[in-house]
Amino acid sequence: MFKLYYAPGTCALASHITLEEAGADYTTERLNFRANQQNSPDYLAINPKGRVPSLVTDRGTLTETPAMLAYIAQSFPQAKLAPLDDAFAFAQGQAFNSYLCSTVHVAHAHKLRGARWATEESSFADMKRMVPKTVGACVALIEQKMFRGPWVMGDTYTICDPYLFTIAQWLEGDSVDIASTPKLADHFRRMTERPAVRKVMEQEKA
Amino acid sequence: MFKLYYAPGTCALASHITLEEAGADYTTERLNFRANQQNSPDYLAINPKGRVPSLVTDRGTLTETPAMLAYIAQSFPQAKLAPLDDAFAFAQGQAFNSYLCSTVHVAHAHKLRGARWATEESSFADMKRMVPKTVGACVALIEQKMFRGPWVMGDTYTICDPYLFTIAQWLEGDSVDIASTPKLADHFRRMTERPAVRKVMEQEKA
Repeated sequence: MFKLYYAPGTCALASHITLEEAGADYTTERLNFRANQQNSPDYLAINPKGRVPSLVTDRGTLTETPAMLAYIAQSFPQAKLAPLDDAFAFAQGQAFNSYLCSTVHVAHAHKLRGARWATEESSFADMKRMVPKTVGACVALIEQKMFRGPWVMGDTYTICDPYLFTIAQWLEGDSVDIASTPKLADHFRRMTERPAVRKVMEQEKA
Repeated sequence: MFKLYYAPGTCALASHITLEEAGADYTTERLNFRANQQNSPDYLAINPKGRVPSLVTDRGTLTETPAMLAYIAQSFPQAKLAPLDDAFAFAQGQAFNSYLCSTVHVAHAHKLRGARWATEESSFADMKRMVPKTVGACVALIEQKMFRGPWVMGDTYTICDPYLFTIAQWLEGDSVDIASTPKLADHFRRMTERPAVRKVMEQEKA
């Protein structure tokens, strides 16, 4: 039994979808970011980083989306959510997810989370202005150099797909037109048609 | 046979040390960042992100430190550089490395790489001022909540250790006193005593 801590609109969506796709036995707990619940003593005892997602398991708590997605895939091998028997292909998927985590998500975070790295209002405004360009460059690179199609890693749906879909949710707010990356636009549309994605999106929006 | 593209002073050090610890058959190629060699057409054909490290293998090229470290560990299981038979422990190590990649390295990068996320000199100065605080908070969290000792994951040296050591190399330049985190200071000292670390450090400084 797993328990996922999440907040709507965050990268926790990738793990939420993956738990659903894996057929995992799991519960969820939603944090209220407006009430700063992620920094409450109760939650900091679960995840001292004060971030989502966190995945509570019988063995302990995991954080960090790339690690969590790989763990879910390994825990439910019958769901075939990662190339578990091919270390190189597995590493390619992990490299893709690491890029989303450390570069694309970080570029996006400069829109609303500038206070993580600066203190002046003028800096926040400067960072915010650059987000369409930086996030746009990331998705262009994914479209042109990384995305194989029809899924991220090629013919087979993997843990890279819900993570890319999660980031793609943010593009409109980042003033990046997904139509400029037609393969990613098509991927986004096909993701929204998956039953697991529909179920999770409805739950997170409820 | 692997080929590692690196530049001195970068996070490629973690992969370089790990190749050495694994007993891998590998060569290295140093990029000249001052000459912007990482953005040359030849290198962009290898890694379109224009970053280091890149690991060229018989199967293709890998990027992103957490993915590369895990792949090296999986490719040389006899070196026992990761808990390969325990998916949860493996995920804990990947979560640690993902935190270094997406949070600690990113905090550090705001000192000299502000142009990734902003355009104004005043923003760069603002970001630079905050680096001691942000990087200091990261290492304090590692010291207090993540580091098990004597190695990152406990009794056994893993792929988390050279990555932490790599980040620790940057602390003095980031105006973070490693003495404020005694467990990490001791870890740093013990890392410098490892033959593989000495060999790689000498090669990168030559």
